[in-house]
Amino acid sequence: MKIANYRMKNEDTARLGILTEKGMIPLESLGLPAGDVPKDMIALIDNFDGLERPLQIALAQDDLLPVALEETQLLTPIPYPRRNVFCLGKNYVEHAQEMKDVTGTSNDLPQYPIYFTKVAYPAMGPEDVLENFQEITDTLDYEVELAVIIGKKGKNIPAEDALDYIFGYTIGNDISVRNIQKQHMQWFKGKSFDTSCPIGPVIVTKEEIAFPPDLAIKSTVNGEVRQESRTSKLIFDIPTILSDLTQGITLYPGDIILTGTPAGVGMGFHPPKTLKPGDEVCCEIEKIGKLVNYVAK
Amino acid sequence: MKIANYRMKNEDTARLGILTEKGMIPLESLGLPAGDVPKDMIALIDNFDGLERPLQIALAQDDLLPVALEETQLLTPIPYPRRNVFCLGKNYVEHAQEMKDVTGTSNDLPQYPIYFTKVAYPAMGPEDVLENFQEITDTLDYEVELAVIIGKKGKNIPAEDALDYIFGYTIGNDISVRNIQKQHMQWFKGKSFDTSCPIGPVIVTKEEIAFPPDLAIKSTVNGEVRQESRTSKLIFDIPTILSDLTQGITLYPGDIILTGTPAGVGMGFHPPKTLKPGDEVCCEIEKIGKLVNYVAK
Repeated sequence: MKIANYRMKNEDTARLGILTEKGMIPLESLGLPAGDVPKDMIALIDNFDGLERPLQIALAQDDLLPVALEETQLLTPIPYPRRNVFCLGKNYVEHAQEMKDVTGTSNDLPQYPIYFTKVAYPAMGPEDVLENFQEITDTLDYEVELAVIIGKKGKNIPAEDALDYIFGYTIGNDISVRNIQKQHMQWFKGKSFDTSCPIGPVIVTKEEIAFPPDLAIKSTVNGEVRQESRTSKLIFDIPTILSDLTQGITLYPGDIILTGTPAGVGMGFHPPKTLKPGDEVCCEIEKIGKLVNYVAK
Repeated sequence: MKIANYRMKNEDTARLGILTEKGMIPLESLGLPAGDVPKDMIALIDNFDGLERPLQIALAQDDLLPVALEETQLLTPIPYPRRNVFCLGKNYVEHAQEMKDVTGTSNDLPQYPIYFTKVAYPAMGPEDVLENFQEITDTLDYEVELAVIIGKKGKNIPAEDALDYIFGYTIGNDISVRNIQKQHMQWFKGKSFDTSCPIGPVIVTKEEIAFPPDLAIKSTVNGEVRQESRTSKLIFDIPTILSDLTQGITLYPGDIILTGTPAGVGMGFHPPKTLKPGDEVCCEIEKIGKLVNYVAK
């Protein structure tokens, strides 16, 4: 199931829907009892145990009422996550190596997962314009990442049970202001500038993707391929991340974990290929879709 | 004004009140129009421009209806902050020096503020019991910190206007799991274990404290003084923090910033004096109060 947060182009109201080959099926058109229609994606995730089967039955009917996609604008699935977005650093081998000079750390592969957070309040969505921060940086960078959406509250999750705690997947672009990331020692500030957390385009529920995910992952800037890898190449895979992160820390439904980015970020090139005003950056993951954003001119 | 989030000991409902010398004055007893009584502290902060004067007038009356403090239990002022708590690392000179071996970094004073975040969902409050995580760590540590509560949305805040964006102050205890803080390179995970963010006991609004704050700050463990300094000794003071952090990042009403901790944390002693099961840890700041927590036995 591909679950979308969207609006009709002639309205401001955010709505939930199921993205199908026939178009967008508004959740409110699927015959759920009025009190059962979740108000937003977090409410949907909180109540998905009871919603999944009725939604599947409703979607199998012949009398669906799809809305034409061209009349809709996709929004980020979870505009205001409950907590900052959890992120993994240096979680693909070649990316860890290309980052030596950028973060001021060694290029050794991490012995333990490296976690930091991004403010995503609000998160950005498909086609949103990102600030260019020209007065502060000439090292604005992109990072395509597989985003895991947590489905169930959990702590001390055994690696072999990780899938039980996953709701689905989407795409994140871990926009980074490299000079600030390095200057302040801890990465948080350089990772948390306004508009630095595009997430989307939709959440694909876990049953559509074999676990652990082995998906083509790619980013392009103005059509030029920059990053290209597979999500199976994570140094710390998703079961390891969920198991390790929840040793001591409870995860909640709707929490977002960005699992790290492959090689090919702008600062990995010589000379660097960082983002410039007007650039189009596209993050793409097989079976999920494309997340396109524009850097403000 | 000392604003509290509390409950009556014989009830579960959280209420807002004003802590006075006469006792706790429930906010709902102050004659505000029913629709104007904020549902929680974030709503109060969001609407404080319109609430401050009516509250001051009501509090000046002779017919207040205080509740005896012994019938109340103080709760953390903001149980679910909108974003992770923003934190400053190494922001007192002697503390930066004592941390060399603990964080695996140099003991040089930071050239720029060091920011990281803590999960505080929920934050802990006065007298809450903290997990001891004995199976994971023998380096559970305390850090008393002055907490700044943001009152107004702001970005690119000029240092000279910082006070305009502050709602008030409280106390934070930046509980840290030192072995995890060091092991994962970025500090986030070791700072974000469940129950690691006690905040309280009340929010003191800014007009009660001369700016920038020069307050005695202290922590004790089982009555033994461990940290003792003044909040005027910050390396990066509050105007600098608000100005620097908001270069690129918008702060929102109710955001919490922990401004760093003075020397005397458990890992700063030889041998270390970290927290043990059953310990009582008290964080105290002049004009704000005491925040006492217990480590689980």
